[in-house]
Amino acid sequence: MEKVLIANRGEIALRIVRACREMGIKTLAVYSEADIESLHVQLADEAICIGPAAGPESYLKADRILSAAEIADVDGIHPGYGFLAENADFAEQCESCNIKFIGPSAESIRKMGDKAVAKETVKEVGVPVCGGSDGTVESEDEAVKIASEVGYPVMIKAVAGGGGKGLRIARNDISLRKEFIMARSEAEKAFGNGEVLIEKYIENPRHIEFQVLADQHGNVVHLGERDCSIQRRHQKLIEEAPSPFVSEDLRKRMGEAAVAATKAANYEGAGTIEFLVDPDGNFYFLEMNTRIQVEHPVTEEVTGIDLIKQQLLVAQGEKLAFKQEDIKITKHAIECRINAEDPARNFIPSPGTIDLYYAPGGHGVRVDSHCYGGYKIPPYYDSMIGKLITYGATREIASQRMYRALSEYLIRGIKTTIPLQKAIVSDPDFLAGKATTKFMEDFAERNPKLD
Amino acid sequence: MEKVLIANRGEIALRIVRACREMGIKTLAVYSEADIESLHVQLADEAICIGPAAGPESYLKADRILSAAEIADVDGIHPGYGFLAENADFAEQCESCNIKFIGPSAESIRKMGDKAVAKETVKEVGVPVCGGSDGTVESEDEAVKIASEVGYPVMIKAVAGGGGKGLRIARNDISLRKEFIMARSEAEKAFGNGEVLIEKYIENPRHIEFQVLADQHGNVVHLGERDCSIQRRHQKLIEEAPSPFVSEDLRKRMGEAAVAATKAANYEGAGTIEFLVDPDGNFYFLEMNTRIQVEHPVTEEVTGIDLIKQQLLVAQGEKLAFKQEDIKITKHAIECRINAEDPARNFIPSPGTIDLYYAPGGHGVRVDSHCYGGYKIPPYYDSMIGKLITYGATREIASQRMYRALSEYLIRGIKTTIPLQKAIVSDPDFLAGKATTKFMEDFAERNPKLD
Repeated sequence: MEKVLIANRGEIALRIVRACREMGIKTLAVYSEADIESLHVQLADEAICIGPAAGPESYLKADRILSAAEIADVDGIHPGYGFLAENADFAEQCESCNIKFIGPSAESIRKMGDKAVAKETVKEVGVPVCGGSDGTVESEDEAVKIASEVGYPVMIKAVAGGGGKGLRIARNDISLRKEFIMARSEAEKAFGNGEVLIEKYIENPRHIEFQVLADQHGNVVHLGERDCSIQRRHQKLIEEAPSPFVSEDLRKRMGEAAVAATKAANYEGAGTIEFLVDPDGNFYFLEMNTRIQVEHPVTEEVTGIDLIKQQLLVAQGEKLAFKQEDIKITKHAIECRINAEDPARNFIPSPGTIDLYYAPGGHGVRVDSHCYGGYKIPPYYDSMIGKLITYGATREIASQRMYRALSEYLIRGIKTTIPLQKAIVSDPDFLAGKATTKFMEDFAERNPKLD
Repeated sequence: MEKVLIANRGEIALRIVRACREMGIKTLAVYSEADIESLHVQLADEAICIGPAAGPESYLKADRILSAAEIADVDGIHPGYGFLAENADFAEQCESCNIKFIGPSAESIRKMGDKAVAKETVKEVGVPVCGGSDGTVESEDEAVKIASEVGYPVMIKAVAGGGGKGLRIARNDISLRKEFIMARSEAEKAFGNGEVLIEKYIENPRHIEFQVLADQHGNVVHLGERDCSIQRRHQKLIEEAPSPFVSEDLRKRMGEAAVAATKAANYEGAGTIEFLVDPDGNFYFLEMNTRIQVEHPVTEEVTGIDLIKQQLLVAQGEKLAFKQEDIKITKHAIECRINAEDPARNFIPSPGTIDLYYAPGGHGVRVDSHCYGGYKIPPYYDSMIGKLITYGATREIASQRMYRALSEYLIRGIKTTIPLQKAIVSDPDFLAGKATTKFMEDFAERNPKLD
């Protein structure tokens, strides 16, 4: 590839500029009017403005992005994450313009983007999925019948819900009947759609995901797992690799399942297979993310493999240069997401001008951020303003390093989640590697001032 | 150790704060009046002002530093590099105050600080040294006799010279007799001391140094070499590990020599054995640096061993936790020194306020710097304001990454050596791994605007 359009902003746009530059590929940045002074615009070889600040008028505007791509005569479009990254129609439009969408085919995106189809697809190749209804459940009796098949507790899930909204848990027939009626009427009120599903509810699970990489020639490998259990309202805060919970044997079995799921999706490029893992080590397919993840750096640091470069190589039609047995994980890495939010005021976004900015450095520290002293964070986009990654030979070293790196990260002028992250990475449960997805709930109770 | 005084400033003071914090050791910064707003002062646990801006009145003022150490009740003093790092008297004063000098004993510093004694010491344990006179040479005839023993070309070196001044090369008896007389009279005029030495002259050598680590229990290992051939007027500009010139066999032999030299010096802590290596792979001991080096990060990145932590562990009396065979070098790392100098104006220092500062980030990039947007570089100290280190699986990846990282390093308001470094790391001789200590001379001819 000679020139790539980067259909994104912020740190991930910079991350893609970096990989392209190291490979000798020219970059075209696109930007909204609010981002004219952004570093991705300054550091790319070319830049085209695609509209006003709001996402739907710029970074989500497929036709403007495709026009820019055609004007600048690019070979490929890298969508990053968010915005158009999992938009099958956009992938299709790229292909019809003869521009390579750097990611899987529209067909794969569609297949894995529909949760029911995705579940069915991976189930067929033997990947464990959470038991539950095959679609919407119409009556209390049907709900009770399904619960007796999959076993309690079960989750009643609004079809139109998302991000944790419209979820109810039932632990026996009586509560199920009661919650079922309430869930339906609540969903009807909240979303204008009362349809619900029933699914087995995993208690105290860990969120463990596998990074996969597939070329156009049928070769698929996994690059080990990331433990992303530390979430606040379904938003990941801290991710690490490897997971302190996963044994060699479990890694092998989950890795094989991730590879099988990827093959079943007819996949190409970098992707992530997300699992829930119960305290006994039983794992269940949750979903596949058909794009690069925010947390990809922890995998890069423990494997030494540059995932964005791999995406570009695969898109060029090259074969993977390594086999499963070549991938060795000998380090431990942790990532903290740095958000411009005020933890003391219910995480309200805190846009504005950064007066002073000093990013941590030194041995075992990586920073992916587009911020600098004087940069004005616009209020229109995601509040994540940087990612701090630390790594070392052991989890203990990586954790100690994260604490010191957070301690020296100076951002003045806006509020950030740095104080919260410092408290989390020095929490005894975190240090003991015990965090499940319930961690933040318990943590908030212990640290009422921080949440 | 519970608390350490850091007798330095700038990036190395920060580097030491980082290692201490990760180990749970408290830090005491000392600072001159010019450095009151420096990050090492802000980030250390405590800070004491030790005098006016000039080094001899602050960072070189042993008594003030020792007073600060006693007031704050520290267990040890880390000298960093430069200033008091190789001052045997200071090491002795520390010990007499019952404060651990984090480095070798005063005796080792003295022994290796005297070049003639150092040469004699390592020669006795079989380490190759450059042949030459045993002290000053009084007559032309004596000069010719020595030259016939060591072989031409030889170097006539003013005893009082240094940094390349007072050096003359002779390639046969006739030129030796002529240069000898001229060298003596020139040295007399320039330094008020006409004494000269004769030493074999190595043509087109590489400067290759070995990192060594010794504990208090007699264990010594080396951590491989660094190639520091790219120098301008004897100042290193770029360092890398491993050297593109050194074969496995040569590494083994040089490494063994470095360990033998370290043992002969009765050494403790981190040190560096510098060699000159001729184009045939013959190597000659140059000197030992009895302190941490500016370029230590490249060794950290290729070995995964934190050298400052090792210094602290050794100073605490701990045994090295690894043996020679445990040290594996599987990556390649390059460091560029970023100086506040104007390459277009003969490298004149360029102090002043940094208006905009953005340090590179992402995969395989490490930055060690105390700078940020708004920081005012004082005119009193060394012009080095940061170190940019890149690494990857191969030298090619590390070089490509260095070029892109230099391209995104934004420092506005002052002049820096970044444009020079970009030109060097894209130079064909550099990329081919062919650079010797003559590199910068040739480069300057090819790039007249940059030197």
